[in-house]
Formats: sequence, C-alpha cells, structure tokens
Amino acid sequence: MKTVKIGLLGLGNIGTGTYKALEMNRSEIEETLGTGVEIVKILERDTTRDRGIEVPLEKFTQDPDEIFTDPEIDIVIELLGGIEPATSFMLKAMENGKHVVTANKAAIAANYHKLMDTAKANDIMFRFEASVGGGIPILGTLTGPLRANKFEEVLGILNGTTNYILTMMTSEGVDYDTALKDAQAKGFAEADPTADVEGIDAANKLTILMALMFDKYVAPGDIPTTGITAITKDDIEKARANNCRIKLIAHAKKLENGEIEYAVKPMEIDESHPLAGINMEFNAVFVKGNAVGDLMFYGKGAGPLPTGSAVLGDVIDIVKSSLR
Amino acid sequence: MKTVKIGLLGLGNIGTGTYKALEMNRSEIEETLGTGVEIVKILERDTTRDRGIEVPLEKFTQDPDEIFTDPEIDIVIELLGGIEPATSFMLKAMENGKHVVTANKAAIAANYHKLMDTAKANDIMFRFEASVGGGIPILGTLTGPLRANKFEEVLGILNGTTNYILTMMTSEGVDYDTALKDAQAKGFAEADPTADVEGIDAANKLTILMALMFDKYVAPGDIPTTGITAITKDDIEKARANNCRIKLIAHAKKLENGEIEYAVKPMEIDESHPLAGINMEFNAVFVKGNAVGDLMFYGKGAGPLPTGSAVLGDVIDIVKSSLR
Repeated sequence: MKTVKIGLLGLGNIGTGTYKALEMNRSEIEETLGTGVEIVKILERDTTRDRGIEVPLEKFTQDPDEIFTDPEIDIVIELLGGIEPATSFMLKAMENGKHVVTANKAAIAANYHKLMDTAKANDIMFRFEASVGGGIPILGTLTGPLRANKFEEVLGILNGTTNYILTMMTSEGVDYDTALKDAQAKGFAEADPTADVEGIDAANKLTILMALMFDKYVAPGDIPTTGITAITKDDIEKARANNCRIKLIAHAKKLENGEIEYAVKPMEIDESHPLAGINMEFNAVFVKGNAVGDLMFYGKGAGPLPTGSAVLGDVIDIVKSSLR
Repeated sequence: MKTVKIGLLGLGNIGTGTYKALEMNRSEIEETLGTGVEIVKILERDTTRDRGIEVPLEKFTQDPDEIFTDPEIDIVIELLGGIEPATSFMLKAMENGKHVVTANKAAIAANYHKLMDTAKANDIMFRFEASVGGGIPILGTLTGPLRANKFEEVLGILNGTTNYILTMMTSEGVDYDTALKDAQAKGFAEADPTADVEGIDAANKLTILMALMFDKYVAPGDIPTTGITAITKDDIEKARANNCRIKLIAHAKKLENGEIEYAVKPMEIDESHPLAGINMEFNAVFVKGNAVGDLMFYGKGAGPLPTGSAVLGDVIDIVKSSLR
C-alpha cells in the first residue's frame, strides 16, 4: 500500500487536534482511500509540551525548507494561523509542487488571488474547508455537489464566540460584559476578544464564502462590519418582543441587477427561521440556491477535533483526486 | 469541449425538475466541469404533456435498450421510482458500462448489495444522493469529507409529509385527520399516504444511511417502524408540557459493544435540540462523528428542483471523478 506523506506546519491546538483525529480514525481513512496517510514532519518549536499525543521526536523540525523541499512529502498542512509567515510558507510549498491544506481564514482572505493563482500555476490542489465553519463541511459542498445551483444568498453565524455571548445575553438575561467574561472563563473567547466581537473574524470568512459562491473577491476590510460590543440587554428584549433573536450575521445577497450586497452585522432573525435556533458556540451557514432552495449546515465552528476533521476531509479529497 | 451524454429514465416530476435544473444552470455546471453535459435520450411514454420545458421529440424513446446499448451514453439517470423495473434497468445500465445516478430509495433499500456489487464488478460509479434528504447533499458528505470520522449516531427527519402534518398539529392545534387533509390539499401528501405516514419511506432512507455510515445493511422491513397515525392532540400537548416537540425520527446509534440500535418512530425532541426547529415539509439529518461532534444538514427533502439539484450534484461528481 502506498503511503501519502504529510508535512505539518504548527502543532498548536488545531495541529494537535488534526494529529489526534488522524490517530483516532486512521483505519477508516486508510480503508476509504486505499493508501496509508502519515504526518512525517512537523514544523514546531515546542517539542516537549504534553499534548496528549505521542509524537516521535524525530518528526519535529525547526527548518520549514526541510518540509518544502522533501521530495517524499505530498501534502503540506498549514496550521500556524496569522497572515505571515503562513502565506509565504503556503506559497513556497505550492511552488515546490506540494498540495496545500489550511484552516487559516485570515491568510486566505488577505491573499486569496495570490494563493489561488499560485496553486493553479503549480497545478496543485489548495483546500481550506476548515477556514469557514470549522468542522462543518460547507466549502466543499458549495463548490462540489451544489454547483448545479446559482447561489442567491448566504447568511452565516460564523463566529462561535459572539454566538455564545449573544446566546447568554438572550437566555440568561445578562449584559454584554458579563457574557464576555463568562465566555472567556469557558474558553470560548480569547483574552483579547477584538477579532471576534468586532466581527473581523466573520468578515474574513465572508470574504471566502463570497469568492467561492459568487466568484467575487471583497477584501475583509472592505466589508461593512459591525460587531456586537454595542448590543444591550434592551436590544435583546426589543428583538424578543418582535419574536426575534439577535445574531451576528455574515450576509451576502445577489441583487436583481447582478450586484452583490454584503455586510457583517447583528441582525434580528425571526424565531421561526432555522438560524434563530443556533445557540451557544455553534456555527451555521444558511444558503439559498436557485434549484435546491434553502439549505442550512450546522455544527461546531471551532475546536481542535472538529477543525481537525475538516482538515483531514481536505486531505481525503486531495488523495482521492490526485494521489492514488 | 467534450460533451458528457446522459440517458434519462422517466420524465415525471423529478425527471422534469432535473431537466429544468440542468437548463437553468447549464453554464455554471459546464464551466465547473470543463465539459458539456447533455440529456440525449429519455425513456418516457408521455411525449406530449406540457412540462414547462422544451424537449425535442427525437430525444424520446420507448425502448430502454436504446439507452443501455448506446455507446455514446456515459451516464444513466433512473427516475422511474418503484423497485421494478427500476432495479433491473439500473443493473442493465451498469452491465453496459454506464455510470448510474438515481433518486430511488425504495429500489436501493431493497437491492442495496446487488446494486453496489454490480456497480463494483463493472467498475462504474453508482450515486444516489437524492434518495435521502432530497436536495440536502448528505450522502456525499458522509462518504467524502466526513470520512475522517467514526460515526456514532444519526437522527433524521427524513419525510416531509409527516413533518408537515406534525408541524400543523403542533402549531395550529389540529388533529391528525385534519392535518393530513391539509397536507393532501397542499400537495405535501399523496392520495394514498401510507408509505409516508406509516414510516416506510423513512425506513427506506434509514437503510441507506446505516449502510453508508455503519457499513451495516438492514432491510427496511427489518427496521422497527412506527408511523404517526396514532399521534393525538393530547400527545402533542404532553410533549409541549415537557418542552418537547414530537418528530418522526429515523434513528440509528452505535452502542458501546459495537452493535447498531435502530428504529423509525415518533420521538419527543427537546425544544433546545436543533431538530426541534425543523418544521413544515423540511427535512434534516443530525449526525454525530467522533471527531467533528454534532452536525446537522437542513433543506428541502423533496420537490422537483431540489431533487434535481441533488441528481445533478451526482452527475458533477461522476464527471469530475471519471469522465474528464
């Protein structure tokens, strides 16, 4: 049996989740593919931290080129996060003929064309399912089975931190600051929550969705973006009186004239709408296609194992399409 | 540009929806694939009915062998419904080297191994996304991107007729007979609703889900199946008092000992569970994977265009994998 060899950039939370998900489900994955799958090299400084997984020390390297130039490596998984050096590393991997998988929404949203063009020029597959909706397999579905549709609209709850905070404000009647502190205590919000609560993370994801659904690139900074920091208990109660729930929605819609209207902002969602029932840290993506009508995909938008599941889904796709 | 040629068995509601969806979105589909896609022959007696589409008369045939033995035809789409002659036709198409796409849950559930084995023996692709959940791309997702998971459980609202009836009983307070008559008047229930209201349709779909998720075939007749005909207004109210909604659920769960427990039956679903908010004729499939956690897929479980969208999704998958 052939073995597909993977180089992994970064063994933080998501990298560890990906490594763990592969260990947990290796036999199913390999049976599906008819090939072995092995992470053979890992770019990571911290080689000693207890991650709850057994990683042979010889897999670690401090030199990214050792991964990019290894002729045995078929796929590079980038899980460093942040725009740089992640983008440069992905480009270098592509230029060396490696297929690339990433969960890095900020890098893709900032450098979408450069990454897509470089992937094409080097005839490699570039996959980033985990970058939007975490474990929810939305991007592959939009670009695969749903391609028999013209897309008309997308409404996404794409950020678990803000959805957790808004859920707490709605169900427990607490104010924004109390809900944020609770989210931080439970690990659903970072110490500096700016990127989440100001809608920046959701805007990055909307950039990616619009590019795939409408073939239109809008830089995240050009998306009108309003976060949830100004939402009061009063706003929540007013929405409830209208039989609505306030959700932070990444929204894009194709207008009659063919233009795309887009924004990230808190919206009142009628309680009969399926998005109104998406609570806590869960994510959901609601799309309208001209043949399929309304569809919604719901699941865990973050977390090591769900995100690892999506990363490995991309690996499976690449092996199926190009490496057997 | 190469053109992929399709033979279509049956131009009823779903066949017409598939034909229409292809006409509506041909340019997107062909651009995605880099090939033309054309339905070149149609097995259908009724050549004159007004279906709201333009079908050149010379595409119609009364002789299925004209499709099976045409060396130009790459894919056969079976949309006749019913177990026979649909199963025999699919087998014959496979034996003639055609890839096969179907929406026919009854035929697949009854003859799963025969169809899968014949597809394998003839080295062709057999796809049936539309057979479970209509337009919702659930089967391809379970067998593709989610294969990096061991599946633990599935709970499906897989029948739009019964979900419509239960929704009406819950929201309008009407009894079963009134809700059924309303569903029939609106076209959500057939004149003879037995297969839907007795849970037989849902059992067929659960057979298919279990085969794909757990590699376990259970004939639909061997699934303990209870429909909704005995549900009273009182049952609905008792559930509401428990903060629950009654839904007809197709359920399968892997137990600690590796056995699969399965049934189709009305269940009380807590109103905080995402399935509780799936109303009217919509379908949803809730799955648990050991890496991804909880996922739910929601959409239109029936109807010509949504089902046609799923059928064409399969065509796209086959062309991508085998015909370019």
